[in-house]
Amino acid sequence: MCEVLRDNLDDHIQDIAESIKTCCFIAIDTEFSGLKSSLETKPSLFDDGEERYRKLRGSSSQFLIVQFGLSMYHKLPDKNKYEAHTYNFYLYPSSFGPRDVRFLCQASSFEFLCKHNFDFNKFVYNGISYMNEEEECEMRRHISTGKLFQGLDREFDERELQEYCSAVAVWLSKAKDGETFDLNVDKRNDVIEYIVHMELRQRFDTVWTRRQGDKITVEKVPACEKQKLELTDDFSQVKLENRIMDSLLGFTRIFRLLIQHKKPLVGHNMLTDLLLMYDKFHQPLPDSYKEFKNELHRIFPTIIDTKHISSNLRKLYEGTGLMESTNLMDLYTALNSYKGRFKVLYSPDICHGEAFWRYERDHHPHEAGYDSFIAGNVFIRMCHLLCNEGIKSTSASPMEFYQYMRTIEPYKNKINVIRASLNHICLDGEDPISKRPELLYVQPRNPGSNLSSSQLAMMMSQFGSVDIKMQGTRHALVAVGNYRCMWDILKAYKKDPDIAVVKYNYWRHSQTARRLLWSGVLLGGGITLLALVTSNTKHR
Amino acid sequence: MCEVLRDNLDDHIQDIAESIKTCCFIAIDTEFSGLKSSLETKPSLFDDGEERYRKLRGSSSQFLIVQFGLSMYHKLPDKNKYEAHTYNFYLYPSSFGPRDVRFLCQASSFEFLCKHNFDFNKFVYNGISYMNEEEECEMRRHISTGKLFQGLDREFDERELQEYCSAVAVWLSKAKDGETFDLNVDKRNDVIEYIVHMELRQRFDTVWTRRQGDKITVEKVPACEKQKLELTDDFSQVKLENRIMDSLLGFTRIFRLLIQHKKPLVGHNMLTDLLLMYDKFHQPLPDSYKEFKNELHRIFPTIIDTKHISSNLRKLYEGTGLMESTNLMDLYTALNSYKGRFKVLYSPDICHGEAFWRYERDHHPHEAGYDSFIAGNVFIRMCHLLCNEGIKSTSASPMEFYQYMRTIEPYKNKINVIRASLNHICLDGEDPISKRPELLYVQPRNPGSNLSSSQLAMMMSQFGSVDIKMQGTRHALVAVGNYRCMWDILKAYKKDPDIAVVKYNYWRHSQTARRLLWSGVLLGGGITLLALVTSNTKHR
Repeated sequence: MCEVLRDNLDDHIQDIAESIKTCCFIAIDTEFSGLKSSLETKPSLFDDGEERYRKLRGSSSQFLIVQFGLSMYHKLPDKNKYEAHTYNFYLYPSSFGPRDVRFLCQASSFEFLCKHNFDFNKFVYNGISYMNEEEECEMRRHISTGKLFQGLDREFDERELQEYCSAVAVWLSKAKDGETFDLNVDKRNDVIEYIVHMELRQRFDTVWTRRQGDKITVEKVPACEKQKLELTDDFSQVKLENRIMDSLLGFTRIFRLLIQHKKPLVGHNMLTDLLLMYDKFHQPLPDSYKEFKNELHRIFPTIIDTKHISSNLRKLYEGTGLMESTNLMDLYTALNSYKGRFKVLYSPDICHGEAFWRYERDHHPHEAGYDSFIAGNVFIRMCHLLCNEGIKSTSASPMEFYQYMRTIEPYKNKINVIRASLNHICLDGEDPISKRPELLYVQPRNPGSNLSSSQLAMMMSQFGSVDIKMQGTRHALVAVGNYRCMWDILKAYKKDPDIAVVKYNYWRHSQTARRLLWSGVLLGGGITLLALVTSNTKHR
Repeated sequence: MCEVLRDNLDDHIQDIAESIKTCCFIAIDTEFSGLKSSLETKPSLFDDGEERYRKLRGSSSQFLIVQFGLSMYHKLPDKNKYEAHTYNFYLYPSSFGPRDVRFLCQASSFEFLCKHNFDFNKFVYNGISYMNEEEECEMRRHISTGKLFQGLDREFDERELQEYCSAVAVWLSKAKDGETFDLNVDKRNDVIEYIVHMELRQRFDTVWTRRQGDKITVEKVPACEKQKLELTDDFSQVKLENRIMDSLLGFTRIFRLLIQHKKPLVGHNMLTDLLLMYDKFHQPLPDSYKEFKNELHRIFPTIIDTKHISSNLRKLYEGTGLMESTNLMDLYTALNSYKGRFKVLYSPDICHGEAFWRYERDHHPHEAGYDSFIAGNVFIRMCHLLCNEGIKSTSASPMEFYQYMRTIEPYKNKINVIRASLNHICLDGEDPISKRPELLYVQPRNPGSNLSSSQLAMMMSQFGSVDIKMQGTRHALVAVGNYRCMWDILKAYKKDPDIAVVKYNYWRHSQTARRLLWSGVLLGGGITLLALVTSNTKHR
């Protein structure tokens, strides 16, 4: 693993670009500042794709990605071996000009990150900046006005700047053309650097500024010379602008490489990751679920969710111990055990590329880079199993990556959804029809009693995952996670003295349906009556 | 300065309590996760106390206090000398049960904290918990149910817990009464500790648990013995509950000591600090501004804002160089310079108490503890100046603290407000009437033209602080910070070809007033007409 921070992004970006360009696929993972902005956005078994998108969208736009993991997998030529280049990025939305992000954090999510040794100082002090397209536009507009402080009251920066300007003014009053003066301007803060260049050049007609090592060197130049430098110098305004935009775009530049090369993206249970990526690096999440799916599919035509694959293979591999759990670490452990590796022969070797060795010795679950590497590994292992499904283990042979991709074609662009009415959504088409059991319908046996949602939840949840939706005070719908849970509940409450639980029947139980039905009967009656009248008329 | 964290609060709380009880006054300061939740909450020269409260309330309820500084000032008996006991607390809202705080952060505020070496890891990993009364009630309710995990999906904790339970089950199957078994449960996390005790006792009828050093010791006991232990043992459920509540209340316990002893609270520009303290440690901020003021005054009858005092003394000390700026660090530097100390003789010595020396050598501006110490120092220096105002410097004499308090009586409970229609609010009475210059009224000279708010702001702000309020598209109100700014604007735009700027006249310029006036005229006319008709009738 290679750790990438604000102050070393430029050192690595060439290598990252090359690796993205030449790899077979890219595994990703994100860590974020929170998951649920409020209780209303809690996932529920009643949610369809649209509703879940609505909930996640509300949260994703408020929380941050604090860490991003990228693991580029390369197949070594003529070897049955993959090499992973894994990068772990800390991200932070640097403020500048109009951009001053307000982000939400969830106390328990930060505590979760603590358990996994997340470094909050690296996050704030040295996190890489990013912007989506909308923010980029606004920033370019701001920079083009040249009024860098306008409308802001960040006195601390202004005081520092004032000191630089005073020092230059004093020096300039006695300096001759060609003489230089050095300012100690911290190299690590690109925003301050840019402002110092711009401010000095705007205030003083006869200075030129350059970054040299740890200092900004101010040179006295004739005004005509200054114009020439603007066209040719390495520190011309245009070049400085490009540099500051590059710095503010930060991780977005890498995200755009992912879009450009369109390599398959692999993640585990990655719906939230996808929404967050879209919102932070691409565009604000659209209102329309359909628009989101279309645009995401346009920029990333191949997305693979290993949680979706493993959930589907669970039945097939029952009893092998390989897919008892679809938790990422459990899958990794099982599939890389002796049994997992040799269930089918020729499962490839997977290693870390040179200079990416940190994860070789230590496990770092829930570090984004580590989890992305693990997701990639699990993906290869499952592909190899699937490719050789139905073949005698001893007849298996080494496989090429394109064969893997052909085999997992049916799982492509299907993203796992937890606790919902459907277990995945489709990015390249209509969402599937729900395979969950029917809803249950609850009412009290005593006509004078009411139901309590929290009490029902407590009673029913001993049988498995349930969610309750009240219909007024005397009726409730119960969504259950699986058929066993449904049957257990129906059995347990069959002779319950207090409440009656039956399978929900739309025409019998829905108030809308009953109203519709009755208005239908009435309308029917009306038509009959009208027909009678008409026929009477006719017969007259 | 003494740094107080989650894991050493218990070591210091006795000393802190004693210091609060015996000191003359307490200076405070807070650092927070952000200031303005959105552009709408930006302070404006149009704001009165009520409106400013509304804006700050919206932000304060979303942001956190991340660091709290307390500096207890003690006058040494028979000496003209004060000793400060300064504590710097890191705070973090630990999540447990129903409590999982979502808090907002402002990117630029975190960057500001970075500039002052704030340690974000101490904040999250080791920040002290706190709760307001409402949160405390909810927590006590939750703990009393005994269902500690209910409704939550924090699987990571549950897994850990499951492991402890399994280990105990295995051991218990072979253990004899009186035998013990040790569990390595991290001592630093009180929440996990509490849950482990409760869960083991609930699951196993014949175990008792105690914290011993780094371990939790599980002892096999007969069930009857267990009942006795519940009444007498140091680890009875009641005592464990008190311990976890103490841990979760954390800093709130210290806040309650402040309320209990009602020592004068001193801060610098402290309106935001007061709102945040109220919201986090006392009660959710009420809707009503009046209710907030009354309740704050009830719990803290004496609050002193050194920014308010210095703003008032500025004129009096003009030219002395002592109060050129009302910025806290500038005041501190000026008032502790040779000139500041000896402008009036016998200004007291101010030192750090034993074990609070860290701030002696180093400056740590914008560390809450340091700023609270500085505010206390500035308070004493200003008191001494004021006490001897009008007396020949050489006639000055050492003063007692009660003399200081008598002198600053007129400044008590008046809190500075920046950029508003009034410069302070009163906690113990009605807010003062605005002393700001009248508003200005702007309209385009060309009847076909419109005004642009941002353009106006740009044009006017070169003369000083201004805020713009549009009245439709052709009229604007301008609030200015001071009289010089108003006169400069009126002069500059006297002969402007594009816009006309005049002092605002309610009866001439307000649309409401004009409507009122016209309806008055019409109503008057109507009455006249009616009178005529009536009189006509009469005369008929």
